[in-house]
Amino acid sequence: MKNSSSSPLFVQLGALILFFLLSLLRSPVTASAEIGFMSPELAAFKARWLMAKNNWGILSTISVDLGGAPFGNVVSFSDGEPGHGFGVPYFYLAKLEPKGGYEINGTRAALTVSEDPLGTCRKDAQNPNCSRISLTGKLKWISLENPEIKFAQVALFTKHPEMKDWQSYRSFQIYKLDLEDIFLFYLFGSPMHLTPKDYLKVPPI
Amino acid sequence: MKNSSSSPLFVQLGALILFFLLSLLRSPVTASAEIGFMSPELAAFKARWLMAKNNWGILSTISVDLGGAPFGNVVSFSDGEPGHGFGVPYFYLAKLEPKGGYEINGTRAALTVSEDPLGTCRKDAQNPNCSRISLTGKLKWISLENPEIKFAQVALFTKHPEMKDWQSYRSFQIYKLDLEDIFLFYLFGSPMHLTPKDYLKVPPI
Repeated sequence: MKNSSSSPLFVQLGALILFFLLSLLRSPVTASAEIGFMSPELAAFKARWLMAKNNWGILSTISVDLGGAPFGNVVSFSDGEPGHGFGVPYFYLAKLEPKGGYEINGTRAALTVSEDPLGTCRKDAQNPNCSRISLTGKLKWISLENPEIKFAQVALFTKHPEMKDWQSYRSFQIYKLDLEDIFLFYLFGSPMHLTPKDYLKVPPI
Repeated sequence: MKNSSSSPLFVQLGALILFFLLSLLRSPVTASAEIGFMSPELAAFKARWLMAKNNWGILSTISVDLGGAPFGNVVSFSDGEPGHGFGVPYFYLAKLEPKGGYEINGTRAALTVSEDPLGTCRKDAQNPNCSRISLTGKLKWISLENPEIKFAQVALFTKHPEMKDWQSYRSFQIYKLDLEDIFLFYLFGSPMHLTPKDYLKVPPI
């Protein structure tokens, strides 16, 4: 039991090989949903693949303007340069509320991303064969003095070249999602729950 | 002033003609964002077009499981048969929480939809030239005894044929979003605020 929880190298390698074999099929998600079982290691790979390949999602927040009602914003994100995604999404945001420009730093949020825009699922977007992920946590401002800013800028500007032009709008600032919980949806019913530790230990994708 | 607020026929016709002319360009949203102005009538047309053409979005809710944190689910929706979209989104849902299966009826939610999956915007998903919409309100269960069920079933099953197979899962039920506020994002800054009345008076799309 200790071995399986500490995930030794051969387990990770095994999951990597399984993931590669499944990816030879049209979509890794299709294959696994048909099989109907996914190990935590494979789920973590899938989650990281979905985040590394995708460019946008929807940030759910609780709106002050709307008296505490849920609200959603379409946001572009990046977890690193192509091929070097580390799993933590960075954003370039000005405001998230319909009207007011409240403090974004520290805001509770969930980023939800669908496999649909990747073109790898041929099913309905709500079919579990078309995977999706929801990452929850708090938005954290990355100041220009923070050493992390360089990584974040390269991550965002390589995947979203247009964002360079947005620098002239001083209201745009870089934030990341400080991860708390990760939920991968791949079968009807409850999503697979991953901890940030499970999710972040996958090598860069 | 009274005339403009009551939107007489010639204003609606004018907006319709303007919308058609703009649609001759690649994307109506691109054109209007460059012009930098949009009348409430045109905004309502754009909002309804975006909802009629799109098949999925993300439903933001406040999660009980996560202690009141925001959460997001990828959902397929339909506002009517193709060419007959009336603007109110219907869903086929089993549950919205990561773990528990709490009551969905009456839940506060926001449906956020991006133009990106339509392939009509060539810009970054967060660029305002790629329009997006967020509709807020409460989810309302449509029982099998409700006369509205027939419209809802036809709306969902024509745009999402796979959903017919989900009928065997008794946990799936039809809901609609009882609209409260509609926000159309088409320029940097604040979104355009539409009332359900503005939004619903556009003819079927």
